[in-house]
Amino acid sequence: MGIVGDVEKRYLFTPGPTPVPPAVLAAGAEPIVHHRGTDFREIYASTLERLKSVHRTESDVLLYTASGSGAMESVVANLCAPGDRVAVVSHGSFGERWISICEQHDVDVQAIRYEWGESPDADEVAAAVRESGVDLVLCQQSDTSTGVVSDVRSIKEAIGDVTLVVDAISSLGAVPLETDGWGIDVVVSGSQKALMCPPGLATTSVPAHVLARAKRSRSFYFDWQANKKAQDKLDAAFTPAVSLIRSLDVALGLILDDGLEAAFERHVRLGRAARAGIKAMGLELFSPDDDSSAVVTAVRAPEGIDGDDLLLQLRDKHGVTLAPGQAHLKGKIFRIGHIGWFDVFDITTALATVELSLTELGADIERGVAVARAFEAFETPVAA
Amino acid sequence: MGIVGDVEKRYLFTPGPTPVPPAVLAAGAEPIVHHRGTDFREIYASTLERLKSVHRTESDVLLYTASGSGAMESVVANLCAPGDRVAVVSHGSFGERWISICEQHDVDVQAIRYEWGESPDADEVAAAVRESGVDLVLCQQSDTSTGVVSDVRSIKEAIGDVTLVVDAISSLGAVPLETDGWGIDVVVSGSQKALMCPPGLATTSVPAHVLARAKRSRSFYFDWQANKKAQDKLDAAFTPAVSLIRSLDVALGLILDDGLEAAFERHVRLGRAARAGIKAMGLELFSPDDDSSAVVTAVRAPEGIDGDDLLLQLRDKHGVTLAPGQAHLKGKIFRIGHIGWFDVFDITTALATVELSLTELGADIERGVAVARAFEAFETPVAA
Repeated sequence: MGIVGDVEKRYLFTPGPTPVPPAVLAAGAEPIVHHRGTDFREIYASTLERLKSVHRTESDVLLYTASGSGAMESVVANLCAPGDRVAVVSHGSFGERWISICEQHDVDVQAIRYEWGESPDADEVAAAVRESGVDLVLCQQSDTSTGVVSDVRSIKEAIGDVTLVVDAISSLGAVPLETDGWGIDVVVSGSQKALMCPPGLATTSVPAHVLARAKRSRSFYFDWQANKKAQDKLDAAFTPAVSLIRSLDVALGLILDDGLEAAFERHVRLGRAARAGIKAMGLELFSPDDDSSAVVTAVRAPEGIDGDDLLLQLRDKHGVTLAPGQAHLKGKIFRIGHIGWFDVFDITTALATVELSLTELGADIERGVAVARAFEAFETPVAA
Repeated sequence: MGIVGDVEKRYLFTPGPTPVPPAVLAAGAEPIVHHRGTDFREIYASTLERLKSVHRTESDVLLYTASGSGAMESVVANLCAPGDRVAVVSHGSFGERWISICEQHDVDVQAIRYEWGESPDADEVAAAVRESGVDLVLCQQSDTSTGVVSDVRSIKEAIGDVTLVVDAISSLGAVPLETDGWGIDVVVSGSQKALMCPPGLATTSVPAHVLARAKRSRSFYFDWQANKKAQDKLDAAFTPAVSLIRSLDVALGLILDDGLEAAFERHVRLGRAARAGIKAMGLELFSPDDDSSAVVTAVRAPEGIDGDDLLLQLRDKHGVTLAPGQAHLKGKIFRIGHIGWFDVFDITTALATVELSLTELGADIERGVAVARAFEAFETPVAA
């Protein structure tokens, strides 16, 4: 029930940073190597190749020492000049981040906004893009603020030759993303989600046809040309986070050994388990009640309970960290992340503690069935 | 003599990344915590306070997930608009980096250049600054490309009210830097040098009077106002590298427990030991032959020997990594870093392997005395 003090166990069920396997943590604790020596170059080459495999692309994947927002900024700094017009598909907090980055760079944004919790409609997006005449669209595959996973394949099909940049920070390695197969022009990601690594590394896949349309970078640190030129020589433009890259190499190895399809199937089943348990308690889902919700399960706080109070109870009494609602959803929803190194017992622990804490807070919920329903839902294989 | 294969030991004597104590590495391998939870906030608060202590400042020290160059860019992106004029004091590779960053941001640079290996003269700098009429000067305290540690205290005294930004990436914690005491306006640093931490974190001290003159940031990720606003709430503007920050907190604790003065004295004595050993072999120093050279000892390759060949011999035969000469000094010098977690036995190992490898390469040097001379030089206490 939570032992006060340092021996209390911690359970991290947030949409990022996410839990990291011990072998990945241990790799990051290896003695430091020089970033221009042979020891590191081998690791760097392996990491860059594995990143391509996880991205399902033959193109370069640039690797920055930064949070994911840095990689997002690299897109705007390299593809847009002040006064350029771009479209942003926004259906949550990270769509708004695209807009903020564009505004900071004096880029004129055509915002295609959806209610938080809604999924973007590819045809609507395409119509808005055609009408505005932009040649660049920025979107999210997964916006963790709502749990919505957007159908970026259909969006790309619908917008055709217009360049599509997908923020897959929280989805790469969790749900299918065929960068080359679907013709996605640029994919941005980060280390701390489904890639099962500590935060601190961010990536951007940049194929030759996109690099060809890049402008003079308005960022020195995130300059695509300079970063690519260095990476091509297995160097890094700036001293990279060598210990995090060691970790990432091990994590990507674990993912690829198991196979990406296995990861995708596991995430679908984790989402099913979470939704089944939540519904069994009589709670209402905020994220879509279908298999697209494989990354985050967002739940409406029950009548009379503030979601943030629930999360404090979970954290301070039981050592369990879930994520709160953001912006106008603060207090109204809570979110269970299941991205990366998660198994069904993480889901049942999250459900069991939500059930316990809601009871402690006096909520009227169905008790004693969530965990069993979650196991049942998880057991059912996903149809091929 | 170097055992081929995976069991070969490695010796990292470069000016960054530098060796990291086991306790610091171990802290980085702790399970991931959420960056908005109480567990992390305690670590974050401690790290930010300790950074102030190491900087010897009462002002905010902004902490970014990035390489040091990112923090350097933050200065230009927040203090300069296109067309602004700034002066850069350049006496090595990192002075040239200031110039490149300014150029990328369309800032007009008045370069005050010194030969690589020369130390800037404060009065000359002040005269050039006065003549050019700029109100912002960017410089290095230590430029590892040459080993020169510049007298930034005298530069600040000489330029008076003109804002001085000091890149102390490789010197903070190694040589005295009294940010507030000397009136240094902004100090930029990084985790992977004297702070004894893996690479991936960068810092910028920004006092209120400098923030007041900041312009609208032309970087989203490195926006001073946004980063400060978040840090003030013990939050971070973007998901921070939580594992590296855990490491940094432990490393800063080790430094402060021992006392900064002890670190400064150790670095002086390490420099003395390195110079005594190098001279005992009959080699010529490139970095100044005085106690200012406490960070890096740069050495001219002996007649007939290419410095890069020497470094390959050291690395591939003996597992010892030193740093090469950069740009026009490539092949002509080699550099022994002694920044951070170094003791005298690191210096004697570096000297012994240089002596051995030069002999293997057929150089005519004095053998058998370098290590003894190094110990003697190290033993002599630094006068108070």
